[in-house]
Amino acid sequence: MAREYNFSAGPSMLPNYVLEKIRDELFEYKDTKQSVMEMSHRSKEYLSIFDECEAKFRKVLGVPDNYSVLFLQGGAYTQFSMLPMNIMTVNKTADFVLTGSWAEKASQEAKKCGEVRIVASSKDSNYTYIPEIDVSTLNPDADFMHICYNNTIYGTAFQLTPKAIVPLTADVSSMILSKPLDVNEFGAIFASAQKNMGIAGLSVVVIRNDLLERSPSDLPSMLNYSIQQKNGSMFNTPATFSIYVLSVLLDWLIDEIGGLETMETINKEKSSILYDYLDDSKMFTGTVEKGSRSDMNVCFLAQSEELNKAFCSESTAKGLLNLSGHRSVGGMRASIYNAMPIDGVKALRDFMSIFEKEHM
Amino acid sequence: MAREYNFSAGPSMLPNYVLEKIRDELFEYKDTKQSVMEMSHRSKEYLSIFDECEAKFRKVLGVPDNYSVLFLQGGAYTQFSMLPMNIMTVNKTADFVLTGSWAEKASQEAKKCGEVRIVASSKDSNYTYIPEIDVSTLNPDADFMHICYNNTIYGTAFQLTPKAIVPLTADVSSMILSKPLDVNEFGAIFASAQKNMGIAGLSVVVIRNDLLERSPSDLPSMLNYSIQQKNGSMFNTPATFSIYVLSVLLDWLIDEIGGLETMETINKEKSSILYDYLDDSKMFTGTVEKGSRSDMNVCFLAQSEELNKAFCSESTAKGLLNLSGHRSVGGMRASIYNAMPIDGVKALRDFMSIFEKEHM
Repeated sequence: MAREYNFSAGPSMLPNYVLEKIRDELFEYKDTKQSVMEMSHRSKEYLSIFDECEAKFRKVLGVPDNYSVLFLQGGAYTQFSMLPMNIMTVNKTADFVLTGSWAEKASQEAKKCGEVRIVASSKDSNYTYIPEIDVSTLNPDADFMHICYNNTIYGTAFQLTPKAIVPLTADVSSMILSKPLDVNEFGAIFASAQKNMGIAGLSVVVIRNDLLERSPSDLPSMLNYSIQQKNGSMFNTPATFSIYVLSVLLDWLIDEIGGLETMETINKEKSSILYDYLDDSKMFTGTVEKGSRSDMNVCFLAQSEELNKAFCSESTAKGLLNLSGHRSVGGMRASIYNAMPIDGVKALRDFMSIFEKEHM
Repeated sequence: MAREYNFSAGPSMLPNYVLEKIRDELFEYKDTKQSVMEMSHRSKEYLSIFDECEAKFRKVLGVPDNYSVLFLQGGAYTQFSMLPMNIMTVNKTADFVLTGSWAEKASQEAKKCGEVRIVASSKDSNYTYIPEIDVSTLNPDADFMHICYNNTIYGTAFQLTPKAIVPLTADVSSMILSKPLDVNEFGAIFASAQKNMGIAGLSVVVIRNDLLERSPSDLPSMLNYSIQQKNGSMFNTPATFSIYVLSVLLDWLIDEIGGLETMETINKEKSSILYDYLDDSKMFTGTVEKGSRSDMNVCFLAQSEELNKAFCSESTAKGLLNLSGHRSVGGMRASIYNAMPIDGVKALRDFMSIFEKEHM
């Protein structure tokens, strides 16, 4: 099969290594005479998959011992609520940095739990940059300060983790496992799986253990971090197969790629191919200020709406899929997560070059 | 491969038809040049899978037009909270029938939203039967009355849907799609997928549309039935692959089995093989009163704890897996959901017979 290059913002491409391994093990996992899909989550066969997945995840990301890893359901959007329900419970106030729709939506869910202060925002420019955070304006009584690390829709990303004076929380859905991250800088991070961790239906939360003490006992049990942690993410049946897919993906990341440092080098190389081209192009322009650019989502515009449409339609015909930008930005967006091979990025750059010559 | 018979309470066996189709389509779905796992949930390729899944589900279960079908995450346990948060909002009181742990747990979550009245219970007998419900004692002001239709742990099931004077809600996790069900008798039903609808990580809610008007606007958005319904279960990224597995499973149920009437006949035949044997056995006894027996979960005891242990250990060695009973009941439990072939049930019955002869 000639696989196409899928630039979707997520769910998106998976490495062939992962798809092939899942396919080969689908009917029978190792010598268990059953599919992973059929395993009781309490069986020793499944618990071994689960425990290995957590161990590999902790190792590759470098999760310190005083943090818990939770494998939950509901996507990052559920975390927009779970996070404040559990930890915005001391002073019932939190600081938010607005860098895009997902940060805005997280702030709106948090408002249902208390007072939300916006401490920095780039909304006035339609989120084309990551705003500076003036530490002197931060609230020392905030229960947490929240950022969205990589803004999938707008193609911006924090280049470094910002300083905070209270526990920092981050939605890392579209950048987790794309490069090293110092978990110690955070109170909690969360991510949905369907970008760099496999398939939709799984979310991973990494939370410092002292914050678990903030969970109120009257929360819905399924939304209680402390209950989930005490039950090892098996308070009810977890998304067993999605966790297995993550485990296979971690094998790829560790054994085939070599870990997060190498992954970052590859990802930088991929994004540079596109940004370098955009910086030289006479037809296309990147939508994001230099210094705020994401290595995962590259947003760009041609000179007219007509050209944008022609580009999306012609690129699809060439097997470069899902390049339409989000409606909030328009134009094009190339999501180039870990699984996008460098050849896919080069194919896109080459197509942009041909398109530019043909349409100028 | 000699597949083993997996009597797990869930996740549990899948039909070979389903596993083979998923495996064959895993690397590339039809002519899309991508795996279902990689598809954007907004792509036309995926939306066609999603829409067909809902259409098949509606058709096979006979869901009336004035009911919505929601494909959510979080398992049935999340519904224990979502249901009262959304519909226990008029008089903030609900009636519960206690028939086991899952009904109890649902009632405990509902207590966080208002007043819970227990209108019938078999707790005093460790849930060995389905209690009668005296309609004259029901609260006409209750926002809903809740039952657990099939009690996975105790092996009991309502034989007919009970009468209610307010909207009836039911956890149908371990019986949905095992036989016809008249959805019109309910205000809402919900089920996790990992018993008769595929793999863990998906829950299906079927709710009468007028009840959607009860959802308070200050709920966490992800827990708001009305928001989920207005967004066609795509308020955020749904569990795309689990929905695809359900779609394949519905193909099996419709094309290979022939629908729910035939499925019920097969399931009755399967459970009768075990119950008939138990009724004649001198060593084994069923734990459930006749008239309350489940066709999905058959619980039984040998004459001593020593024999129970020997049975579980010897049956595992014979490829009859996961027959240990839940700790609340002890002994053995054979979960024989739709995917358990009749040959698996006969193999269990034959092994029981041999075991009985050898150990008497």
